[in-house]
Amino acid sequence: MQIGRHTLPRTALCASDANSIRIRGRELATELIGRQNFSGYFHFLVTGREPGPGAQRVLDATLVAIAEHGFVPSVQASRMTFAAAPECLQGAVAAGLLGCGSVILGAAEDAGQLLIAACARATELGSLDAAAEALVAQRFAAGMKLPGYGHPEHKVRDPRVAALFGVAREVGGDACDPRFMQAAEAVEAVIPRVYGKALRLNVSAAIPAVLLGIGFPSNALKGIPLLARTASLIAHLVEEMAMPSGFALAYQATRELQVQEGGRP
Amino acid sequence: MQIGRHTLPRTALCASDANSIRIRGRELATELIGRQNFSGYFHFLVTGREPGPGAQRVLDATLVAIAEHGFVPSVQASRMTFAAAPECLQGAVAAGLLGCGSVILGAAEDAGQLLIAACARATELGSLDAAAEALVAQRFAAGMKLPGYGHPEHKVRDPRVAALFGVAREVGGDACDPRFMQAAEAVEAVIPRVYGKALRLNVSAAIPAVLLGIGFPSNALKGIPLLARTASLIAHLVEEMAMPSGFALAYQATRELQVQEGGRP
Amino acid sequence: MQIGRHTLPRTALCASDANSIRIRGRELATELIGRQNFSGYFHFLVTGREPGPGAQRVLDATLVAIAEHGFVPSVQASRMTFAAAPECLQGAVAAGLLGCGSVILGAAEDAGQLLIAACARATELGSLDAAAEALVAQRFAAGMKLPGYGHPEHKVRDPRVAALFGVAREVGGDACDPRFMQAAEAVEAVIPRVYGKALRLNVSAAIPAVLLGIGFPSNALKGIPLLARTASLIAHLVEEMAMPSGFALAYQATRELQVQEGGRP
Amino acid sequence: MQIGRHTLPRTALCASDANSIRIRGRELATELIGRQNFSGYFHFLVTGREPGPGAQRVLDATLVAIAEHGFVPSVQASRMTFAAAPECLQGAVAAGLLGCGSVILGAAEDAGQLLIAACARATELGSLDAAAEALVAQRFAAGMKLPGYGHPEHKVRDPRVAALFGVAREVGGDACDPRFMQAAEAVEAVIPRVYGKALRLNVSAAIPAVLLGIGFPSNALKGIPLLARTASLIAHLVEEMAMPSGFALAYQATRELQVQEGGRP
Repeated sequence: MQIGRHTLPRTALCASDANSIRIRGRELATELIGRQNFSGYFHFLVTGREPGPGAQRVLDATLVAIAEHGFVPSVQASRMTFAAAPECLQGAVAAGLLGCGSVILGAAEDAGQLLIAACARATELGSLDAAAEALVAQRFAAGMKLPGYGHPEHKVRDPRVAALFGVAREVGGDACDPRFMQAAEAVEAVIPRVYGKALRLNVSAAIPAVLLGIGFPSNALKGIPLLARTASLIAHLVEEMAMPSGFALAYQATRELQVQEGGRP
Repeated sequence: MQIGRHTLPRTALCASDANSIRIRGRELATELIGRQNFSGYFHFLVTGREPGPGAQRVLDATLVAIAEHGFVPSVQASRMTFAAAPECLQGAVAAGLLGCGSVILGAAEDAGQLLIAACARATELGSLDAAAEALVAQRFAAGMKLPGYGHPEHKVRDPRVAALFGVAREVGGDACDPRFMQAAEAVEAVIPRVYGKALRLNVSAAIPAVLLGIGFPSNALKGIPLLARTASLIAHLVEEMAMPSGFALAYQATRELQVQEGGRP
Repeated sequence: MQIGRHTLPRTALCASDANSIRIRGRELATELIGRQNFSGYFHFLVTGREPGPGAQRVLDATLVAIAEHGFVPSVQASRMTFAAAPECLQGAVAAGLLGCGSVILGAAEDAGQLLIAACARATELGSLDAAAEALVAQRFAAGMKLPGYGHPEHKVRDPRVAALFGVAREVGGDACDPRFMQAAEAVEAVIPRVYGKALRLNVSAAIPAVLLGIGFPSNALKGIPLLARTASLIAHLVEEMAMPSGFALAYQATRELQVQEGGRP
Repeated sequence: MQIGRHTLPRTALCASDANSIRIRGRELATELIGRQNFSGYFHFLVTGREPGPGAQRVLDATLVAIAEHGFVPSVQASRMTFAAAPECLQGAVAAGLLGCGSVILGAAEDAGQLLIAACARATELGSLDAAAEALVAQRFAAGMKLPGYGHPEHKVRDPRVAALFGVAREVGGDACDPRFMQAAEAVEAVIPRVYGKALRLNVSAAIPAVLLGIGFPSNALKGIPLLARTASLIAHLVEEMAMPSGFALAYQATRELQVQEGGRP
């Protein structure tokens, strides 16, 4: 759309008047509150469909998997922000979310695109292995990284991967199409040969692998770490209220700061 | 803590090494993923305790109740931000959360403090009615508003209130102490006499009324609308990708803008 | 750098102790305060060099040119955020800045890259006209837009362009190399032939055209609209305190909202 | 204003059409670009008045004084955010601004209120000394801190205070009313007797002391550190592009993290 075009805003999400709030056609007060749990409602808001029990379990597993991993940079940024501006909890949460970008948590969406491409290519080439081989070789030749593979801390294999795949297999192929997990593992198997080192599947590829399996839309994948991290940021900030670390982190971080006076940028 | 003091950062939330991620002492991969749902995990992160089934239902009901209410100002801000900066989904979510402040969604925490004060005062004065009378009169005399009472759209009674109280009563007094709901209704009953108009309980008072009943910490109440709105903001932004309204909103908003040239601020 | 690598943080910007604050090797209290004006200091912080009088005028002209353009989407987002969270001025400014993204204000950096490419290509091809021809044709063939050309409101020519070029020409070629302005105009001249319509130079291309001329680093171009808009956002929020529009904007924006109940995203 | 009231948005800041952008009644392209410098334009946007040369110098001095102080918490938060989300410069700037809150940079506004109160009280009590005495004693009795006094690093006296007061005195009493500086020093003189320790004037009190002197509105004081820090954040992020510290800061910060497993919040 062009900026300033004379268009009317539209939505399918919510209509309300003095007596009623309808969400995607359902009455919030009588049909949703008390009937859906929060992650199921999130699925309903995003897709218009309530998840079945299997899809619900898979979705919960991904949100639990990615929510919390300690004092990562975005949590530190959030705690420092809260220490400096305690009047504004929402600002500290926002600061934390702003660090959920392409380098760290954004990988989930890129990895999802890779898995979708692998499955599409497999139809052409006859097998996931051939598709993985082709895609990985192509990315390597282009000097690209593989989103969702390798982890600075979990060198062997991110333990969350097996946990997520375990849940997805438990709920079964009817609830969660295993194709994207298979693609993820086909890619993982090819990497050592092409990249010359074993970059194992990490949580950022495992999440789209199972969520695409339940039909979760690929353009909403980036929302998964954002929603999950909000939960964890709130927990960190509640802890920060009682046991502050924000300024201590800033102090520790610069104990060995190298100042290059007169240096140019 | 003083800024810059030589203190060490501390946390009880997470410890990790190459093979393990432990959250509050539990192994994430084997004890949490696939076992807790997302809202239960949020409760566990914040409080260190898994909610029982009743508390879980109450918590889910509050998150569902407050997540979505259409094109409210913070949703509009988020959609406009995304239209202008689509490369940065996290920025649009952050912009939306920044509007969850004292005037709109912050009321949940203030209302929680009011209910806690009412219950404490009731012990002194012998009854919730007397406590409500005293507190409301005192606030009126001080020219203060009552957080969580009155709603610009839902003049009669916000339909979400009965829904939340219904869930809380269904799960029973053992899972959800009814005292705070009683306090909320005692305050509502007194208002017309003191303020001279009927300001009915709205969702922002109903949420602390039921969450304090399940033992949810009062200093985490502000996190409830933040987490809930994140879910809804993601749904709005996914809709915005396919059916853009951001610039249309900005255009419509200023069709009748009054420019006072030469006017002073 | 790898995440978590054992690296020491470094900076050339500031060193301080109990008695002294040194900025890029100068004493803040005695050598900078009262001697540099704010935009000159910004230039010094970013580049390590004080601008000469000509460069200073050009820099000021760009910041003045881009700071304010009325109730644009990011200003609306900021005012709505402030209306909802008046306890947190910094949050409302942050919300406004988050809308300075690729679609609207980010064009300055992309346009800068285009002008740099045009000048580099001109060396190869012998003339700016040939370089512009080649680049524009290449972008058109690739289905790309031309950042910094065309404006939804200012169809003829954004009046700020002539103003900026006028200042740059006034300060002269020694202070501001005219090459990038020439490149910008060479591109503008080619567009009608290639794109089939006259997309005139707008402020987002004029800014890099003059700033690259004074040697301002191309990777800092995106900072110009951010700094400029911060000034304007503060003015809007100070106006909002006395004469609120935030909720009125949100109300007006949705007077003709189209709700498609039951619709899918 | 009530949420949702049928009000029209209003502004005195900007009107534009296809050929013209008028800012507070002046033509941007012909009357402002090239004629005002950036800080003067900021003053004009906020107040509707161009500053005279003395007021201009004072304003510049405050912006230069507060812009940069090294790897303070908000700068660290911004650099970590950029390291994780380099696709979104505006997000990293926003994250840095979110840490300009009540504890650190918000003091300027509170200190301004204190100085205004001191001057008002002096009229009543006959002298600034008596007014300072009364105000400080009252705050001490109420267990309150004195905003703008004391600094964790600059124990003797923040060197920026003398620099700012020096500029203000240089421009003279006609351009900058010295009354608020006198109030600031009267308060400083009383503190040791009342609080039992010497809390010296810091930059956060010196800024309102000189800006109130030039007639800068007190409700815009909080904007001064926000605008100034935006300049410095951009410089830090440009440095971060070439010489990254964001992840190194996060790593250093947690080298001695104390994890209390099983601990409660």
